[in-house]
Amino acid sequence: MTRPRNDSFLRALLREPVPHTPIWVMRQAGRYLPEYNATRARAGSFLDLCRNPDLATEVTLQPLARFPLDAAILFSDILTIPDAMGLGLYFADGEGPRFERPVRDAAAIRALAVPDIDAELRYVTDAVAQIRRALDGSVPLIGFSGSPFTLACYMVEGQGGTDFERVKTLLYAEPALLHHLLDVNARAVTAYLRAQVEAGAQALMIFDTWGGALTGPAYREFSLEYMTRVVADLPRDHDGERVPVIVFTKGGGQWLEAIAACGADAVGLDWTVDIADARRRVGDKVALQGNLDPGVLFSTPAAIAAEAHRVLDGFGGGTGHVFNLGHGISRLTPPEHVAALVHAVHAYPRALS
Amino acid sequence: MTRPRNDSFLRALLREPVPHTPIWVMRQAGRYLPEYNATRARAGSFLDLCRNPDLATEVTLQPLARFPLDAAILFSDILTIPDAMGLGLYFADGEGPRFERPVRDAAAIRALAVPDIDAELRYVTDAVAQIRRALDGSVPLIGFSGSPFTLACYMVEGQGGTDFERVKTLLYAEPALLHHLLDVNARAVTAYLRAQVEAGAQALMIFDTWGGALTGPAYREFSLEYMTRVVADLPRDHDGERVPVIVFTKGGGQWLEAIAACGADAVGLDWTVDIADARRRVGDKVALQGNLDPGVLFSTPAAIAAEAHRVLDGFGGGTGHVFNLGHGISRLTPPEHVAALVHAVHAYPRALS
Repeated sequence: MTRPRNDSFLRALLREPVPHTPIWVMRQAGRYLPEYNATRARAGSFLDLCRNPDLATEVTLQPLARFPLDAAILFSDILTIPDAMGLGLYFADGEGPRFERPVRDAAAIRALAVPDIDAELRYVTDAVAQIRRALDGSVPLIGFSGSPFTLACYMVEGQGGTDFERVKTLLYAEPALLHHLLDVNARAVTAYLRAQVEAGAQALMIFDTWGGALTGPAYREFSLEYMTRVVADLPRDHDGERVPVIVFTKGGGQWLEAIAACGADAVGLDWTVDIADARRRVGDKVALQGNLDPGVLFSTPAAIAAEAHRVLDGFGGGTGHVFNLGHGISRLTPPEHVAALVHAVHAYPRALS
Repeated sequence: MTRPRNDSFLRALLREPVPHTPIWVMRQAGRYLPEYNATRARAGSFLDLCRNPDLATEVTLQPLARFPLDAAILFSDILTIPDAMGLGLYFADGEGPRFERPVRDAAAIRALAVPDIDAELRYVTDAVAQIRRALDGSVPLIGFSGSPFTLACYMVEGQGGTDFERVKTLLYAEPALLHHLLDVNARAVTAYLRAQVEAGAQALMIFDTWGGALTGPAYREFSLEYMTRVVADLPRDHDGERVPVIVFTKGGGQWLEAIAACGADAVGLDWTVDIADARRRVGDKVALQGNLDPGVLFSTPAAIAAEAHRVLDGFGGGTGHVFNLGHGISRLTPPEHVAALVHAVHAYPRALS
């Protein structure tokens, strides 16, 4: 097995020398691109798009056709696992994801089982294989999953954007029950990510969107602990190549030392974190990914370059930095501003040996 | 002028010896109390309630009649200032606050002026005076305002809960215009808080609900700087007594050292912050207020006491701690759980000299 022709993303994650700081953008295949909206309209719904490997491949490649990004990421949803568990994922018009059958009591939680990935999530591994073929050795493909705790939030609340009343009731009043749910989720996430690697994913990312809503001790017990288990159980090499893992807890800036010790190769930083401070805190234990404020992309090419340079200067040179936003790109972003960002990062004249 | 009979809240803020750790609860007069909902139904709308000093007094006192809380807080809304500037505050059914006339361009921002507090916000200072009389020297009364940046977010976005697209566009593309808006807001907040002190408020709190959505440098430039100016311009003594000021940035845990240097007497902590770590970081520069996860109140009296003790143990004894939640209380909280919390804090056997 050989690496992709542009392997700067993998090299930075593994802290090998890089010719330039690699960049990709969270949610890079998304609604800010007119061609994405056209494909999605053709697909029908967002879920139809996720479940159709041809169309998922098409939208995964769209941002790479526009911008010289250094990685592709599987187009999918973070809630495919609970959907495969039978919770009935759907998207209400103009709103976020919801479940028809959230798990609200002990019986529902005890009844959960790790889904059969081959049977229930074949559309995802098929998309991974097809995207990998379509990339044809150009840049690496990132597979991903929601974190066990983030999946649990959606599964218990039935939707995002709440104050987490139900999941926190469980956490504080019936912690053993939440641990049971998280254990099932962790085993499911592990199986799901393993299947993505076997289908061709060359790096993995775990999105912990809601871990930052916890206290420090609860974060370690109910979110980080389960990501640590997932990372420990993943295949770390495939076809003779290391498969690096990135862990990203939005709002986790206060806990970076602990996150960096979870066994992952890299830690994602949201935009509130000072990346210079983050590097001092984690030393050379892990690579760092991030962390431009997505709001910067609403400004001007000159301001975008200045803010991108601030992040690059903050990291301070050398390898071990994957440039990204600190959160998913907004649908209101002008695509030409992404071009300006990618150019600013690639043209950055710092020595990167 | 003498202090209230129970002055433990003021003493803790000023780091004077206290007989017990004082406690109050953010949003303590609110929808989790049936008597509040009854008064609100009688008032008509939420804004009618805020604008009627008799009813504002009634609901301010309701939680004190139920629980032996150590402070009262003015019942009002954080958006009274922009409303007085002419933006037209209203509440859509079942949703948060909105403005009829958000400020969306340079002309609208340049046209803003500090409102005449006596003319436009007399209903607030009347309520402060009336609540103070009704408290009759029992516990101190806290006045409050939104922070200049938090007010700006609502004024520009027109509502809360967005991804801050408009305010971040302004921040990164037209920073001078945002600074103009923040300067007007800071002068308005100062005048408003000063008027509350003159009407009888014995401590002040500045709520920076959205400062945590910024990068570190942007937080310091666009939020903390303006709170610092407000604090510097406030009367710090009134009628011979110090009027302590608490500054609270939700999501500001990474910037505590800077916040503690803003001139305030106390810093509010959200529930994601480790209070022991916070105390180590700020030393004895300021008192700390917080920081129980509001979600703990969904559990059981025993779990509530255990988590409250964890916060108290974390602070580590001595004065300088005002117990509170790390965010406003949820409307789903059983009132008897608040009773359990207040009891757990007051009965905590630690030496507090």
